[in-house]
Amino acid sequence: MKKYNVAIVGATGMVGTEMIKILAERNFPVNNLKLIASGRSQGRMLRFKNKRIKVENLDRVSFKDIDIVLSSAGSAISKRFAPRALRQGAVIIDNTSAFRMDKNVPLVVPEVNAAQINRHRGIIANPNCSTIQLVLALWPLHLKAKIKRIVISTYQSVSGWGKKAVDELISQTERSLSKEKIRVNRNIIPHQIAFNVVPQIDRFVDNGYTLEEMKLINETRKIIGDSSIQITATTVRVPVVISHSESVNIQTEKKLTPLAARKILSVSSGIKIIDDVTRLKYPLPIQAAGKDSVYVGRIRRDQSIPNGLNLWIVSDNLRKGAALNAIQIAEHLINA
Amino acid sequence: MKKYNVAIVGATGMVGTEMIKILAERNFPVNNLKLIASGRSQGRMLRFKNKRIKVENLDRVSFKDIDIVLSSAGSAISKRFAPRALRQGAVIIDNTSAFRMDKNVPLVVPEVNAAQINRHRGIIANPNCSTIQLVLALWPLHLKAKIKRIVISTYQSVSGWGKKAVDELISQTERSLSKEKIRVNRNIIPHQIAFNVVPQIDRFVDNGYTLEEMKLINETRKIIGDSSIQITATTVRVPVVISHSESVNIQTEKKLTPLAARKILSVSSGIKIIDDVTRLKYPLPIQAAGKDSVYVGRIRRDQSIPNGLNLWIVSDNLRKGAALNAIQIAEHLINA
Repeated sequence: MKKYNVAIVGATGMVGTEMIKILAERNFPVNNLKLIASGRSQGRMLRFKNKRIKVENLDRVSFKDIDIVLSSAGSAISKRFAPRALRQGAVIIDNTSAFRMDKNVPLVVPEVNAAQINRHRGIIANPNCSTIQLVLALWPLHLKAKIKRIVISTYQSVSGWGKKAVDELISQTERSLSKEKIRVNRNIIPHQIAFNVVPQIDRFVDNGYTLEEMKLINETRKIIGDSSIQITATTVRVPVVISHSESVNIQTEKKLTPLAARKILSVSSGIKIIDDVTRLKYPLPIQAAGKDSVYVGRIRRDQSIPNGLNLWIVSDNLRKGAALNAIQIAEHLINA
Repeated sequence: MKKYNVAIVGATGMVGTEMIKILAERNFPVNNLKLIASGRSQGRMLRFKNKRIKVENLDRVSFKDIDIVLSSAGSAISKRFAPRALRQGAVIIDNTSAFRMDKNVPLVVPEVNAAQINRHRGIIANPNCSTIQLVLALWPLHLKAKIKRIVISTYQSVSGWGKKAVDELISQTERSLSKEKIRVNRNIIPHQIAFNVVPQIDRFVDNGYTLEEMKLINETRKIIGDSSIQITATTVRVPVVISHSESVNIQTEKKLTPLAARKILSVSSGIKIIDDVTRLKYPLPIQAAGKDSVYVGRIRRDQSIPNGLNLWIVSDNLRKGAALNAIQIAEHLINA
């Protein structure tokens, strides 16, 4: 079996750490693994299977011998190193917003649009975390009943903003419990997040939406391949460490009962149903953390419109929302 | 000026405590204040202005000399003591779900339907906390543009479930930070709430909704006095101590721009606009706690439907969501 030289850009971050773990867990055919980060982390040793690997500096590294780059170090960084990596012959699976809306770049959730992968011209984009779990859960329902409109409110964990945001939540919570004054580092999350919720993720754009909200709207349309789907979103940061939750209201063109939706989703790849309210069972972020599936529950009729349905969708934002989805793309790429 | 004999049933609870505070703050014309709770709290001394008042046992107390009862001790308790208090001539302002949907009982948010107060036959119901802030914020928009449909997802604090739920959040959070095993008291919140969100508030009913969700739907219609308003709701408990937040999507019959909505709400009683995203200003639960207003922000067009609007509504669930609204009803009652 052919083995591949893989590089991870952003190897010391939370998503990079998951990527290293998942490559091992899934026994991805790695020949050589190059771990790359900023100059600050240069020389750090990280473990992959039974090997210790020294972290290399992105500014100096060569991609000449690399087959696949998994990158998750921020959009500006991806834009900077991508041309060099492409020239040197690597294929980039990029988990930043740098290229997602580029019409020459496939934006892929493998369970939904794996066929797009082969259209790549060197870059394949991994969607935003909150988009992946939404699209994965809605796609089978869309195929069956055609979704016309989506109204979504999110409950997003701090790990979606990186390790520094997790540290910020923990230290703010500690200070709050010991009644010390809370210091908010506004460069990380703009307001206190301990014992609070903040209705802003990423910066605001001209129409009063945040970038996170616009990503949800635009990426969902691109992945589903239907720009007529109407979507509105409110994205909110909550004091949860891992896993994003989404309260999702849809209207379909054809009738779709909760029972039918449950049946369709229960046989769909990547999805697990937790929906037994008589036993108080529904998806919870702390239970989804560390797991691969997208969990769906609280599926019920929305009586306020014809063909309305409510769902509650939860998934580990670092795994299916980022690292796992990227590595699934890589698996499709090498098996094409 | 006439003074009134007031009784608080549930005086030792979180809402009861706010009621005592707010009666003093607003200088309600109290002649005598009777503080009432269950037998467990009998004999406890509580402070009102510069007096110390002994808590009396609900089972033995007389309402003969009482003009107004403010009650917030749970629906079963209200159903039990109400007939006795009514017979003894008191008017009850009841902050439980016991009588809210009774067609002979006015359900009142004074800024919206104060005129209903005079229709009372001894009982006036205070709406559920999540309903009050929703209705107060939407009413002025409804008057202007007629709301056809509401889709709401909530972010509700633990104090909505009483002091025991606040204690539960704090102790779970402490144990989580010190990496001890978290013990969940499922009689309080059905799952861990520290660093988690739980999409269940109150028990489930037959249609897969929770009672909290059905209260939002049914109470909103009753207060607005329009059963044709279509509403769907998903209510979620979040690890916040005080204040509920609501992500609200509305569709109006007439066109309503965000600018027009902001203008209308900025001159509406009980409402404060915090909506300046260029300065990262929007309502936050920690900032609303202890305040009287309902805060509205993130007002923006929902492009996914004609005449769609998104709003983010936050208020202190113990004050405007409970104690303050009840005392405002009492003020209207005595000024009628």
